[in-house]
Order: sequence, then C-alpha cells, then structure tokens
Amino acid sequence: MVITRSISFSTRGNTDVIDITERVQREIKNSPVSSGIITIFALGSTGGLTTIEFESGLLSDFKDVMEQLIPLGDYRHNLKWGDANAHSHLRASLVGPSLTVPFTDKELNLGTWQQIVFVDFDIRPRNRNLILKIIGE
Amino acid sequence: MVITRSISFSTRGNTDVIDITERVQREIKNSPVSSGIITIFALGSTGGLTTIEFESGLLSDFKDVMEQLIPLGDYRHNLKWGDANAHSHLRASLVGPSLTVPFTDKELNLGTWQQIVFVDFDIRPRNRNLILKIIGE
Amino acid sequence: MVITRSISFSTRGNTDVIDITERVQREIKNSPVSSGIITIFALGSTGGLTTIEFESGLLSDFKDVMEQLIPLGDYRHNLKWGDANAHSHLRASLVGPSLTVPFTDKELNLGTWQQIVFVDFDIRPRNRNLILKIIGE
Repeated sequence: MVITRSISFSTRGNTDVIDITERVQREIKNSPVSSGIITIFALGSTGGLTTIEFESGLLSDFKDVMEQLIPLGDYRHNLKWGDANAHSHLRASLVGPSLTVPFTDKELNLGTWQQIVFVDFDIRPRNRNLILKIIGE
Repeated sequence: MVITRSISFSTRGNTDVIDITERVQREIKNSPVSSGIITIFALGSTGGLTTIEFESGLLSDFKDVMEQLIPLGDYRHNLKWGDANAHSHLRASLVGPSLTVPFTDKELNLGTWQQIVFVDFDIRPRNRNLILKIIGE
Repeated sequence: MVITRSISFSTRGNTDVIDITERVQREIKNSPVSSGIITIFALGSTGGLTTIEFESGLLSDFKDVMEQLIPLGDYRHNLKWGDANAHSHLRASLVGPSLTVPFTDKELNLGTWQQIVFVDFDIRPRNRNLILKIIGE
C-alpha cells in the first residue's frame, strides 16, 4: 500500500528547526498502514530533514555549528544572481532533503529523545510543504 | 511492485556534480508504477547523492565548501595504501550514498529549482553505476 | 511485503564505527523478500548511519574529520543539562540516522569496498539497537 500525504507550515528561516514528529505520527495513525516506512521529502533547495533531541540549547548549538561549517559569504551563486542565500542552499545539500523512518503497529520507531525535524536554512520566513509517502501493509 | 533499474555515466571526478533528474524521471515514466518512492544508490565509496539547484555558480560554491570542510591532506588512508583520495572517501561518507525521492502520477515530487545530483568526489574520471529501486503501485 | 527486524550490539562510543554489513545481509537472506530496499534506522540521537570503506586508516581519518568539523566544546546543551555530549548529538544530526540500501536476488547492492556502518558518536560505551524494515517482493 502507498499513501501520499503532505504537511505545510510557516517558518522563520535562518536555520529555524521545526519539530514535525507529531504531525508525521498523526498521518501514520490516520492511514490504513500499520507497519512500514515513511519517506518525508522537503520540496525546495534550501531546507533539510534530520533528527535531533528537540531542546532549545541544542537547537542553538545546531544553528551555530551550521554557521561555522558553511558561513554567510560572497559565494558565486550570490554574485551571479544578486542573491544572499547561497549558504542556505549549501547547508541544505549537506543535510539532505529526504528522511525515511520506520514505523511498527502505527508507531514511529524513534528513540526517546529523538525528534524528526525540518530545518529551514533560507534567509527569510517561508511557507513550506513536505511530501509524505507511507509504504507498507 | 518493485522495479530495478540502473543508470551509468562517466564523470570527471574532483567533486564533479552530475544532474541525473531527467534520467531518474524517465525510468519512472517507463515503469508501471504511478505512485511511490525511488531509492537511488551510489555503488562505491567515493560518490554521494543529494539535491541542489543545478546552477554553475552554486556548483562551484559546493566544490569550494567541500574542499574547506574536508581538504586534501596526509590522511592515514593515503599513507597506508599509497592512495591520494582519502578526502574523497570522507566527503562521500558525509554526504551519503543513498537518496529516496517520492513521486506521484509518475512525476518526481521536487521543488522547481531542485535537481537530483550524483557527486563524484574521486580524484580521477570514473564510470559510475547507480542502482534505482522503484517501489509503489 | 514488509519484514521488521532489529539488530543490537555494544559500542565503545567516541566515533566508534561498527561494520553491520554482514548482519544486514543475513537478515535479507533469512527473509522471504528477494528484491527491494532495506531501511536501517538508528534509535537515539547520538548515532548515525552511512557507508565507508571499512579500513582502519580511513576509520581514524573519519574520526579526526568529525572532531575537526564539530569539536568538543562548551555548547549550550552541555551548559544547560550538565552534559558533555552536545558534539555527539550535532554530529549525529549531520550524518543522519537513516540509510536505505537496495538489494537484488537477496544480495545487497553495494560497491566492492563499500560497507554499511553505524557510527556511535556518544562519549561512553552504549548498547545500540537498530530497526530494519525490509520492503519488497
């Protein structure tokens, strides 16, 4: 069985980390699938998906680390297009746009302190749309 | 339904970024599956998969960033084996060899400026082979 | 068909890299599925999954690179909770908790020098549990 869903929300940009665990869990609960995988995919090239312990200290640390790894700067993308978000694209490509999570008996298989997050690396507030594919039986 | 396909191409190495979106899309179109996911997997330990806005400025920026994050150097892998591509392996492990993308009505669910790319981190031209698994109904 | 399995093992922590290829391959062999994908998922927020050439020189290099990219430090997570493993969380979020690998005729599709690894970024020995979902026909 293949079920397609999407979830939408607003972000503030600038490495805004959004906890989507409950919404993903709800879509699984509301689907007819009890065991399988869910692929969550970020449409667009300036957002990424991963898991993290969703705790404000660590979210600040994550933002700092991304700024150290791929700082703002005079990237060629910016110079060529008059943009200012090359670092957003580069961070998104590094973190990746796709996350596949297993679930069993309609419950996501996650650690106790592990949440599913979308990270908006863009430099302005955005409306975001994620595609969910629930595959299983 | 499970459909197995592969795509092959030549690269120049040294963080050569190859846009495979059209070829992946074509394999979905030619398959009997209309809704599901496609897992794209890079065989070998010096290549990775992600998405990016495929624009020459940003591709240069991506190459520069990878060189800053994991520069060429006297890694133990090189010293031990007389190799020079330890940085290629390390970059590939960081970016990751696997990407799963949803599709609906035989169309990849991607953002407007979001392309699927294989990145060849090796230090010489290579012939590459990617495995595709199309799963759905 | 959807088959759920798990594998458990002990680690030493501190970027301990565990080769799980043979155990994953065995679960596929022992399943009734001959062609499909396997999603491997790391429960917990201080471990990650990727592929690498499992060779002691390169494993040392990988550890060094992770320490350069995300060093130990006075992160807010540590200050707030009296913890010392913020860098473990951050590295795990960057590498990612999920890996999906294709298999055909009950054999993992991997390169010759490409192994599936779990990386324990935590700062102490841990017992780890990975969820496996085998999907295919």
